Formats: sequence, structure tokens, C-alpha cells
Amino acid sequence: MVTKAYGAYAADKPVEPIDIERRAVGPHDVQIAIAYCGICHSDLHQIRSEWAGTLYPCVPGHEIVGQVTAVGEHVTSFKPGDTVGVGCMVDSCQHCASCEEGLEQYCETGFVGTYNGATQDPPGHTLGGYSQDIVVKDKFVLKIRHPVDQLAAVAPLLCAGITTYSPLRHWQVGPGKKVGIVGIGGLGHMGVKLAHAMGAHVVAFTTSEAKRQDALDLGAQEVVVSRNADEMAVHAGSFDFILNTVAASHNLDQFTALLKREGTMTLVGVPEHPHPSPNMGMLIFGRKSIAGSLIGGIAETQEMLDFCADKGIVADIEMVAARDIETAYERMQRSDVKYRFVIDNATLAG
Amino acid sequence: MVTKAYGAYAADKPVEPIDIERRAVGPHDVQIAIAYCGICHSDLHQIRSEWAGTLYPCVPGHEIVGQVTAVGEHVTSFKPGDTVGVGCMVDSCQHCASCEEGLEQYCETGFVGTYNGATQDPPGHTLGGYSQDIVVKDKFVLKIRHPVDQLAAVAPLLCAGITTYSPLRHWQVGPGKKVGIVGIGGLGHMGVKLAHAMGAHVVAFTTSEAKRQDALDLGAQEVVVSRNADEMAVHAGSFDFILNTVAASHNLDQFTALLKREGTMTLVGVPEHPHPSPNMGMLIFGRKSIAGSLIGGIAETQEMLDFCADKGIVADIEMVAARDIETAYERMQRSDVKYRFVIDNATLAG
Repeated sequence: MVTKAYGAYAADKPVEPIDIERRAVGPHDVQIAIAYCGICHSDLHQIRSEWAGTLYPCVPGHEIVGQVTAVGEHVTSFKPGDTVGVGCMVDSCQHCASCEEGLEQYCETGFVGTYNGATQDPPGHTLGGYSQDIVVKDKFVLKIRHPVDQLAAVAPLLCAGITTYSPLRHWQVGPGKKVGIVGIGGLGHMGVKLAHAMGAHVVAFTTSEAKRQDALDLGAQEVVVSRNADEMAVHAGSFDFILNTVAASHNLDQFTALLKREGTMTLVGVPEHPHPSPNMGMLIFGRKSIAGSLIGGIAETQEMLDFCADKGIVADIEMVAARDIETAYERMQRSDVKYRFVIDNATLAG
Repeated sequence: MVTKAYGAYAADKPVEPIDIERRAVGPHDVQIAIAYCGICHSDLHQIRSEWAGTLYPCVPGHEIVGQVTAVGEHVTSFKPGDTVGVGCMVDSCQHCASCEEGLEQYCETGFVGTYNGATQDPPGHTLGGYSQDIVVKDKFVLKIRHPVDQLAAVAPLLCAGITTYSPLRHWQVGPGKKVGIVGIGGLGHMGVKLAHAMGAHVVAFTTSEAKRQDALDLGAQEVVVSRNADEMAVHAGSFDFILNTVAASHNLDQFTALLKREGTMTLVGVPEHPHPSPNMGMLIFGRKSIAGSLIGGIAETQEMLDFCADKGIVADIEMVAARDIETAYERMQRSDVKYRFVIDNATLAG
């Protein structure tokens, strides 16, 4: 099946219309007509070859929602018409310890990314959600129970949502816990909503005075402008957990200083340039930790989607047409979006 | 009471004989005739004012063992003649959350160090174990059950022992766990002995080919010379826990690469110059942590001493006379000691 997509032919080329091929629906496959696809920072890094190993043509997109249009003969969990999602992974080895524990994101042989991953399908690497249709193994398809009119705003849950949900759950955020969310962008705004819904006392950290009210509106009980040393000092040694969503190189010590004894700050973004080396004395003199976390497993992604459906949580989005993706990239780079661009995939038709 | 000691009058002066004053024994005090005192790297950092805030005269020493010579009227746990120890702390606030949990090392107002700490005793800061006698509040005195002929080798347990024991316990090292100990010096050799005694599979990491057999003799099941990339690669992704005892600036990534998913590497030494900034991708792609840990609380120090007495564990030491402390410092700086110098405090008299 040939389907319309948007992709780039080289690192220095813009995204443009491109016809791509999808494999025939195999016995365990689900074919999905994509309704919306979120635009993640990763898309831009990948398409510009800022991360090593981009294969071209590159069709990004791993925040995919849509309707099932066909299923393979062995598929029992989905049927045509179901509203479903696909996140950052479309396959994994399925037999390593991580896969067996449902933590496919840590697959020991590496999961297959929704784009730029290894596949036997043409053209030899996976092509993502900036496309009209996609065919995905049923185990990597998620059920969506949100109302259909919220579907576009559900898309970012598939990456931004699970990337923040998983560490919040792993480090047991909930009632009685004081939790910091650093960075109020695509990831951070979901972190604030989710941590709030989990019952924690949420403090949002932003470098921007202009985002103070926004962060409160998202569900933060307190907002700290991290450039203000006095505001920061008030919170010294008081956080159980800090989720740091900022990938840009920055001073981590100002946040480890705010952790309680045995507190953890977890990073979810790989910085392009290393952060200044963290002060290990800060960790030693409080038995504190700096940790990392990567998206979430399939089972946990389903759990997150169900949690969000139950709590009425979606992302705050701005819809764009496919022809405006490059403009969206530019605005995303200067943080000019509240808080996630989502492509209306109907506009791929031309 | 005036007692003989060794100390320095300035950062650029060697240690030399000095008479110091000890307070009269108060109602909750224990007076101890010091038999032996270990030489810790901290002693050298402090006396040379390589850490901020050294107060002179400086009498170092926080690995103290000896016999009780007098006790205050309200002291019920100790009596003259008891064999006891004193570690890195001689007081703390006793009412913050950390103190109430028996984690005085994380006292929110800062514990009082055995030397260079705040005190009303003359000369206004605490003076450590390079001395004939010391007077310490009973709550900070430890019972020693080892045979008396092992007493000198017990001294290093009070800092090197508890500094390694506490993180090994906190991160639940035991049977079925694969544990790395980085650096086979004063701290690391205790880490190997303790992790082995706790039942873990212990792998020692050293930069020195010459220490390979030594590390096996200490109880390591395997030894890796960390300069050999091939040797390191064999252990990729296999460690539950790594205790990193090396304070000198070094590449942490080579060790985080060896952690399993959710593994932790804990540092116990504050580097003089920062480590190269750790690769956060290594943490993110395995939900791994880098943490810190500081000595241990008083209750845990007692637990460690009892554990060592039961298991027959002491440090490997080289005894020195007080007049040879400067030589010991020089040799310690070039790692020419197996594995801890201990001062025979009887030599302070002469």
C-alpha cells in the first residue's frame, strides 16, 4: 500500500510531501488510518541528523492516534473502527529480561523505533506518523478510551505523556510527596498535569517569568522562576522527587540542592552538549541520586492512557497542517508553543 | 587535662608535637585513652587546607580506638576499661529528622566533626585522634568487640569501614547481587571485604595491574583492570550496584555502562576537580542512577563493628609512629600503602 507522508530526503532538506509504502497486513498486524500525529523535539533532532545514524528518506512522528482500518487474522484485541495509538516503539526482541517484564523500552537488543528503526519493510528503516496510514504489530498498539473530540490532544500522551508518567510512577509520586517539574514545555506540561493528578504537591520550575500563571493553570501548586536564587533557596532540601524535562545543557546542582535526603532527580532528555558536571558533594551529603528514565513500556503506556482517560487529562496543543511543519519546528525551537504541535493528518492528502 | 598530640599550625607546616587541652569529663562524657588512630585521606586534605575552612592548630584523626579511662555520672553504657571507638562525628543536633532516624551524618544543621568541628572546648574547634586522650559524648562512642590484639586494624573501620558498609547496606547488597568496587585503597579494600562478607559476587576495579592478586586475596571473585577496554566490555550491563571509592577525577561513564537496568553507582568521595560530566544518555537508556553516600549513622556504625567482629573482618594496615606521619602522607598520596596507615598513639609520648 502506498500512502502519503511528509518527510525529508537529507539533513539539510525541509520536510516535503513523499509517497511511502506500507507493508501488507500480516497475521499479527494492525493497520491504522492516522488522524493526528504530535510533533516531538526528537523528530527535529532526527530529521536534521543531529543524532547519529539518521536514515533517509526520514518520516518522523511517534505520537500517533487514529482508527483501525484492518487487522491480521491472529489479532484479537483490535477490530476495524477502534480508536488506537502508537508511541515511540513498534517492535522489540520480546524475549530479553526487559521485554519479559514489559519494559520494552529497555530491550537489551534495542527496541525498534517508530521511525528510523530497523525493519525489513521498505525502504529498510521504519517511517513514522507524518503519514496517512501505518501498519504495526498488535502488541505495540494502544487502546484509546478518550472521547473522540479529544483525539488530537491525546496524541502527545504517546511520547510526552508516557515519558513523564513512567518516572513519576517508578519513583512513587503521590499524596504526601513534594515533586518538582523542571521545564514547562511539551514534556513538562504533561509532568505537571500527571503529578498533580497523582495527588502530589507539584512545584513547577521555569526560566520564564511569563510562564508563571500558565504553570499554575496546568495544576502546579507553586511556580519557581529558577533564575531567581532567592525563590530557589526557599525550597532547599525539600523535594522528594524532581523530574527534569530540560534537555538543554544547564546547571543541575541548583536542583539537587532542592532535594531532600534520599531524594532523586530524574532526567528524561539527552543533552546535545553535556550538562556542567554535577557537584557530587551535593549527592554525597544527602544520599541523593541523579537518574535517567526512557519513555515507558507498552503495558505502562496503556496504564497511562487509561489513567488520563479516567482523569480527563490530555495535552494542551496547537494543531498544524502538514505544510506548516517547518514553521512548527522553528517555533518549537524558540519554545513558542503551548505546549505541543499536533499535525492534522487529513492535511497530508494535499 | 593537657594531652600530647600531633598537629599542624598552618596549611604549609608539617604535623609536629603539640600539647592540647581536653575538657573535663561532663555528666554524659566518656574519656578515652587512644591506642591507635587511622590516617584517612581527609586528614591530609584538611590539614593542608585543601578543603575550605581549616582551623589551626589542626589535629586530625577520626579513626579512633582505645580504652575508656573515665565516664560521667549519667553514662550507663560504658565503664573504665571498655574498648571503644570514635569515628567521624562527635556530636549533632539530635532533634532534626535525620538525627531522629539515627542518620546523624545527614544532620540538617551539620554534624560536629571529630576534628575541625564547632565546639565550646578550647581552642574553639574540635581536635581529633592524633592525640593521647579524647573526651566524647557517650552517644558518639562505639563499643568494640574484636579481640584486643586486632585493635589497631579495627581503627580504619570507624571511617573507611562505615563509609563503605553504609551504601552496601542501603542499596541492599547481598547474595545474588553482582557488586563492583572501584578503587582498591583504604576505602575500596574495606568495600571488597564487606561486600564479600555480605554474600555478594564482588568484582574489584583497579587501574593497577599490580593490584590484581591483592584484590583477589581481599575477597573479590573477579578483578578488572579498568584501563583495559576489553576486560571492561565483558561486564557491560551486568552490575546491580557499583561502589565507587575513587575521589580523583575520572570517567564515570565507563562504570555506568556496566550497570544493569535500574542499577546504581554510588560515589563516596568528593573529587577535588569535577569528574568529566557523566553521559546522561547512559542513565536514561537503562533507568540507572548515580548517587552519593556519606559515612554512616552511629547506630549503623555499631552494626558495622558488630558485623565485622562476627565475621572476623579488620582492615589491612601498616603501623606508623607519630614522627612518621608526614612520610605516611607522602606514601598515601602515591597509593603506596596496603591499605591504611594507623598511628600507634603510644609513640605520641616520646
